[in-house]
Amino acid sequence: MVERNVVLTIEYDGTDFSGWQRQSLRPSIQAEIERAVQAVIREDVNLIGAGRTDAGVHALGQVANFHATSRIATDRFPPALNAHLPDAIRILSAREGPPGFHSRYAATGRTYRYAVLNRPAPSPILRAHTYHVPAALDLEAMQEGAALLLGTHPFASFRGVGSGERTTVCTVRRADVARAGDTVLFTFEADRFLRHMVRLIVGTLLRVGRAKLPSETMAEILAAQDNRKAGPRAPAHGLFLVRVSY
Amino acid sequence: MVERNVVLTIEYDGTDFSGWQRQSLRPSIQAEIERAVQAVIREDVNLIGAGRTDAGVHALGQVANFHATSRIATDRFPPALNAHLPDAIRILSAREGPPGFHSRYAATGRTYRYAVLNRPAPSPILRAHTYHVPAALDLEAMQEGAALLLGTHPFASFRGVGSGERTTVCTVRRADVARAGDTVLFTFEADRFLRHMVRLIVGTLLRVGRAKLPSETMAEILAAQDNRKAGPRAPAHGLFLVRVSY
Repeated sequence: MVERNVVLTIEYDGTDFSGWQRQSLRPSIQAEIERAVQAVIREDVNLIGAGRTDAGVHALGQVANFHATSRIATDRFPPALNAHLPDAIRILSAREGPPGFHSRYAATGRTYRYAVLNRPAPSPILRAHTYHVPAALDLEAMQEGAALLLGTHPFASFRGVGSGERTTVCTVRRADVARAGDTVLFTFEADRFLRHMVRLIVGTLLRVGRAKLPSETMAEILAAQDNRKAGPRAPAHGLFLVRVSY
Repeated sequence: MVERNVVLTIEYDGTDFSGWQRQSLRPSIQAEIERAVQAVIREDVNLIGAGRTDAGVHALGQVANFHATSRIATDRFPPALNAHLPDAIRILSAREGPPGFHSRYAATGRTYRYAVLNRPAPSPILRAHTYHVPAALDLEAMQEGAALLLGTHPFASFRGVGSGERTTVCTVRRADVARAGDTVLFTFEADRFLRHMVRLIVGTLLRVGRAKLPSETMAEILAAQDNRKAGPRAPAHGLFLVRVSY
């Protein structure tokens, strides 16, 4: 039996899930897809995701791979798996990876986007996918603050409590804040992210946007390497894993 | 007691409702808001909506008015009513109307938008607010077909079965089809719309987009005044009442 390494690109609405990672009790994205793979090819696989998104976080382009022996055609995976998945999870595409390909270790970059709805009234249509901030936000100040994070630094100040990464050094290649109508979009690209990093950065930038902190403080918080200085953490439902690069 | 006429602008996600209009059994937008008004000012009001959206249809800017005697400040209505409404319904603003103002009869125009997700894979994030059409769509042909509906005509061909309007004449002032990324947006503005009119037009235009009908057929279907020629009706969940003009 020849082993193959199947690489999936996945979109999901994280609202009703405990996050990417398999858990014993609550439904997770990983467990749902592993169950669908079982239903389609009758193999118990271990699905390796590039980004372990937290409870409530969404993905437009999560990447995950699994090893299998089934000889089903690659392009049959998306429709076959989707038929066994809840509407909130969809396999967008499937391809064959090299035998040693590991979607997490091989990734060279991840792009996350955080969406804020910035208008007085909340929005029923956008409520599951944006964080509602009614107060006025100074876009330019947030842009200045975000730019101070570009480059290679230890991001210990923007790391969730209990996060177990061995090193906190990340290289941030993109840190944009843009307005599109009532929505303010924060986009970050880095080689890696620490647990809660994007939500802690966005929560801190929102304080800058509301003139509670000067934008230069972002550099001071970063330099402090102390996660009591950052935040509060923005809620999960505004966050999307947009893309994984290899 | 002085009677006042309160005019609300409302956004809602129609997914879980039987439509705008009060019904005896299933929850409707109208009934939910009337119940919230009762909770806030202890008056039983009859809420008159500008557009009676069908089950599953959404609104970004529905307008509705009610008569009351309460002297609560106008700008207190949105937060007070929202505190009694489900997340899927939000009062965006409130203002005082002239005594005889009737949100439906006084309206001079309505704008509806229909959103199609046009890519091979379905989208979990957009699934409740776009109609997924995986097949390629000819945008130019749909634009040509939509333009043939502009002006004042009897729209009997684009009227749902059992719809009871006395006249089918509508004046369509805008009929646009535009692409934004993977989304195709159909926008229609008219003095009035017949029941199911937008969904029947979009369903017919999608046949044009898939090259099942030449765009000129839109004029023939319109001229036929026969609703067996149009459709199929596009599903409710892609449709939004965007704005009501006075």
